[in-house]
Amino acid sequence: MYPKTLQQLIESFKMLPGVGQKTAERYALTMLESNIEDLNEFASNLMNIKLNIKTCKVCHNLTETEICDICADNTRDQNTICVVSSAKEVFSIEKTQEYHGVYHVLDGLISTKKGIMPDQLNIESLEKRLSQESKEVILALNATVEGEMTSLYLAKRLEDRVDVTRLAFGLPIGGHLDYADDMTLIKAFEGRNKIK
Amino acid sequence: MYPKTLQQLIESFKMLPGVGQKTAERYALTMLESNIEDLNEFASNLMNIKLNIKTCKVCHNLTETEICDICADNTRDQNTICVVSSAKEVFSIEKTQEYHGVYHVLDGLISTKKGIMPDQLNIESLEKRLSQESKEVILALNATVEGEMTSLYLAKRLEDRVDVTRLAFGLPIGGHLDYADDMTLIKAFEGRNKIK
Repeated sequence: MYPKTLQQLIESFKMLPGVGQKTAERYALTMLESNIEDLNEFASNLMNIKLNIKTCKVCHNLTETEICDICADNTRDQNTICVVSSAKEVFSIEKTQEYHGVYHVLDGLISTKKGIMPDQLNIESLEKRLSQESKEVILALNATVEGEMTSLYLAKRLEDRVDVTRLAFGLPIGGHLDYADDMTLIKAFEGRNKIK
Repeated sequence: MYPKTLQQLIESFKMLPGVGQKTAERYALTMLESNIEDLNEFASNLMNIKLNIKTCKVCHNLTETEICDICADNTRDQNTICVVSSAKEVFSIEKTQEYHGVYHVLDGLISTKKGIMPDQLNIESLEKRLSQESKEVILALNATVEGEMTSLYLAKRLEDRVDVTRLAFGLPIGGHLDYADDMTLIKAFEGRNKIK
C-alpha cells in the first residue's frame, strides 16, 4: 500500500472525469516530484475557484464579476443571442473569434431520460432578455436527441418574438464522406448550397 | 477566455503528465461542480504530500516514517533484496502479495543517453546493506536498454558478495504468440522449461 497521504491524494485525483486508479497513481507520483511552490499554487487555485467564480446575472456564463465581460462589452452586438447548453461552449465559440454577439447559457438540455424539464433550465431569463431590439436567437446546441428536443422547444416558444436560427448540420471540415454516418449525410444533402 | 481563477486552475492541471489544454479544461470545469469540502480536501492533500512523504533511510522507498513499513517488518525476509528503479514498482510488486523479501529503490537507471551514471543512483547504500547473511539480490528492472545496462552493471558489482538474479523474460500471460516481438520470442525460447 502507498503511504496514507499519497493514498489520499490518489483518491482525490480519482474525482476527475475518466481518471481511474492507474492514472491517479501516476498523477500523484508526479505531484510528489513537483516543487512545493507549484503544489501550493495548485492547492490555492483549487480552493479559489469556488470562492471567485460565479455565474453572470444576465447570461449565466462563468465570471468573476456580477456581469460577465461579454455582456458588459458594448462593442458586441447585444441584440444577437447565441444559446448554448453550458459555459464550456461559450469558450469554444469565443476561440473562433468569429462571433460578435452575446450568449445565453441554459445549464443543461431538456431530457426525458434524465428527467430534465424546461423549467429547470435558464429559459425564463432568456425570454426576459428579449426586447423590441432583439434581432436573432442562434441555437448552438448539441446535434443529439436532447439538443434537438431543446432546439425545437425553444424555437416554438420564442419564434413569435424574435428570429430563431440554428447552426448548420453537415460534414465536419476534414471529414471523409465514407466515415460520415447516415444522418449526417442526409442533413448534408438537405443543406446543400450553390458553389459561389 | 476563461475567468482568471479558472484559467489558473487549468494551468495547474496542465502540470500533470499527458494532460493538455482540453483535458485540463475538462478537469477544471468538473472541479467547479464539486462541493467545497471535496475541493478543500483535494487542496490539503496536495500540500500534505511534500510535508509528509519522505524516502526510507534504508531502502529509499516512499514512507511517512523514518524507516518504511516493509523495512520495519520483521516477518519479512530481510536478507532477500529486490532492486527496482522507482518507488512505483514497489507498489506494483506488493500488489501481487507473492514477494516476502525487502526492496531497494535505485531512483533511476544508468543511461548514457540521459547521462545518468551509477554514482547518481542509490547503489552505494545497497552495497552497505549487504552482509554475511544476505541471500539474494533480485534485479527487477525494466526490460529496456537502460534496465539491461543497469542489471549487468549491478550483477558485476555485487556478484562476489551475494547471489544476483533477475526476473524471467518471456511471453506475458494472456499474450498471443503472433503479437510477440522477435526479442521476446527469442528470450522465451531460451528460457523454456520442462512442463511439470
